[in-house]
Amino acid sequence: MKFANRMNMVQASAIREAGKKISARPGCISFAQGLPDPVLFPSKEMRKLTDVLLTEKPGEALQYGPTKGYEPLLQKLVDVMKARGAVCELKNIQITTGSQQGISFLAMLFLNPGDIVITEEPTYLGALAAFRPFECSFRGVKTDWDGMNMESLEQLLKTTERVKLVYIVPNFSNPCGITMSAAKRKRLVELAMEYDFLIIEDNPYGEIRFEGEHLPDIKSFDAEDRVVYLGSYSKVLCSGLRVGWMCGGAEIIERVEILKQGADLQTNQLAQMQVDEYLNSYDISQQVNRVVQVYRQKRDILVQEIDKHFGDLVSYVKPVGGMFLWLTLPEGIDANQLLDLALEKNVGYVPGGPFYPEGGGENTIRLNFSMVEASEISIGIEKLAEAVREAIARLEK
Amino acid sequence: MKFANRMNMVQASAIREAGKKISARPGCISFAQGLPDPVLFPSKEMRKLTDVLLTEKPGEALQYGPTKGYEPLLQKLVDVMKARGAVCELKNIQITTGSQQGISFLAMLFLNPGDIVITEEPTYLGALAAFRPFECSFRGVKTDWDGMNMESLEQLLKTTERVKLVYIVPNFSNPCGITMSAAKRKRLVELAMEYDFLIIEDNPYGEIRFEGEHLPDIKSFDAEDRVVYLGSYSKVLCSGLRVGWMCGGAEIIERVEILKQGADLQTNQLAQMQVDEYLNSYDISQQVNRVVQVYRQKRDILVQEIDKHFGDLVSYVKPVGGMFLWLTLPEGIDANQLLDLALEKNVGYVPGGPFYPEGGGENTIRLNFSMVEASEISIGIEKLAEAVREAIARLEK
Repeated sequence: MKFANRMNMVQASAIREAGKKISARPGCISFAQGLPDPVLFPSKEMRKLTDVLLTEKPGEALQYGPTKGYEPLLQKLVDVMKARGAVCELKNIQITTGSQQGISFLAMLFLNPGDIVITEEPTYLGALAAFRPFECSFRGVKTDWDGMNMESLEQLLKTTERVKLVYIVPNFSNPCGITMSAAKRKRLVELAMEYDFLIIEDNPYGEIRFEGEHLPDIKSFDAEDRVVYLGSYSKVLCSGLRVGWMCGGAEIIERVEILKQGADLQTNQLAQMQVDEYLNSYDISQQVNRVVQVYRQKRDILVQEIDKHFGDLVSYVKPVGGMFLWLTLPEGIDANQLLDLALEKNVGYVPGGPFYPEGGGENTIRLNFSMVEASEISIGIEKLAEAVREAIARLEK
Repeated sequence: MKFANRMNMVQASAIREAGKKISARPGCISFAQGLPDPVLFPSKEMRKLTDVLLTEKPGEALQYGPTKGYEPLLQKLVDVMKARGAVCELKNIQITTGSQQGISFLAMLFLNPGDIVITEEPTYLGALAAFRPFECSFRGVKTDWDGMNMESLEQLLKTTERVKLVYIVPNFSNPCGITMSAAKRKRLVELAMEYDFLIIEDNPYGEIRFEGEHLPDIKSFDAEDRVVYLGSYSKVLCSGLRVGWMCGGAEIIERVEILKQGADLQTNQLAQMQVDEYLNSYDISQQVNRVVQVYRQKRDILVQEIDKHFGDLVSYVKPVGGMFLWLTLPEGIDANQLLDLALEKNVGYVPGGPFYPEGGGENTIRLNFSMVEASEISIGIEKLAEAVREAIARLEK
């Protein structure tokens, strides 16, 4: 049996491959996984409200529901998006199974084989995985400390046909931990109008800001449905629920709803009601604060230990939020080969190369700090620095 | 902004359109929805076991889990499939968000634009919706009282290139309520080997048999990974959980897992654990028995009332299980136009035409009996018969 041509584009996740190596070593300190710290899940609250839902509304919570989503939650998301500065009504919102499914549907909705998707370089691996089955080509644009370089983007747009989508994680990005400046967000929307493309603004980490003011969403500059905003409750509430949403032009949302009918009928009904009930009963900003405090402390330790053990050997941009820090190692170090050396010292991470849509970045690595115990960060970074020094010594031989 | 070419193939669901008309009429007796009766959900059991899960394993139940699925549930499904006569190991199982998502992934995995999908005529509307974004063509094969006509299928296979998939609901099909004979199941697998195609065996209703012996799965005749079996807990346990599974060749399952990483990372974690815990704590065969008894009674009333009010005016095959009965009205009656007449009498259904992949079936309708109150079936069918007689009178004018 022959698989479809699109399967030539599809490849297994590098995170999963690194993960396999790491989980084969019990006791290994892992900076690899991109998971929220489950200690921070509001488990007691979820247990209590779930019991209420399954007592009072079992027929609704366990039954099929509308493909578009659970109506009371949709209504709340309209208000959430309005408060974020978006023009938004019910017709602009669709529930998705995490924001991941939103990327996949937009790929399905817009991409013909050979169409171009522009991403940051490096970019979220899961987005590449969502786009690939639709046989697009990728162009990466270099990322400065304040987000995608707008001159490089415009240069690329001038010389490239068939650009359909630009994919951006504007806040504390996965994998870079970098935040796009307000000026660049505004400029990106102007370019979208001038060069006729759609912006996917994927914002799963936006609430987890450690310091400084929240910046306006790209979507808030959007006057003509050029931006589709993807939101998620995975990073601040509970990741396993798989409840995200999409906010975009009515013509887009209407078609995504039809695609979702064919793809999976609807997102888990109880999970949508759990999120809705949580928002009814609790102040989510307090939950966000808990997450921010714990992750900020971990980020502080991570940065301090990197500076202590690596000195000038590496470069990075200090993340002001989120769950990730991106480390650039000396030229010539292959992060893939380094991983085996690091694993011998019981420390793991994800090599950065696969996050580059057009290749490159062999000397970069992604460090996740949300899932590592604060007490283990120090020893993990010390060991990683040892591995890097050994790799350098081998290079110089 | 231009949508992808595939969107020319995509259309809104006819069930949804009929549903809108019906829900605009409060008090309307509806045979339209394909929902399980929520009275039959094991709500108390789900509440109890969910409370245990969120007390004892909140960090696991609310966290990301493996894309392939929750390991203890996967293990159980291996045993389920072995008991059904399939050759099955862990590498042959993937959890999906309902069996609907399984259809969508197989379409993504196998279909190039212009490839042919063969279905029964009529077939499940949701399958057509899952296939369409992958720009295939459909060929319908007529359905006898004992399932797809194998001579017509072979004739079609002899004269048709690029047949990739044959999609079958073997037991008490949606929409027909028809069951494929064991001989035809065996023959279908032989044809798959001879003509080199993959069979999708979609079996969400298989447990809900009212009388007679269970027939062997198509999958049980499969010696060379020609059949992918799709299972679901939506119809016997709870539909809103969206937990289904796929059992197929390891090469297929491995690729589906990669596609799922891009599509939605994973199915809701708590829902998978709820199903697993239900299977640990309760005897699902008792739950199945409850469903069977209630639906059988509704089927009996429905058949009796059709015979009483329609006499020889209509034809149908009495379903021996499931949730649906398919009614063929006199030639010349347009079930779409009839719907408005029926709605005036406060009774609704889904017109059969859209279930025909190549058109036709204008004089057919789908009747769902799981969601109608037993007490309302009689009056609903009486009114529907009145509407049909009026439509005939109009025709004769």
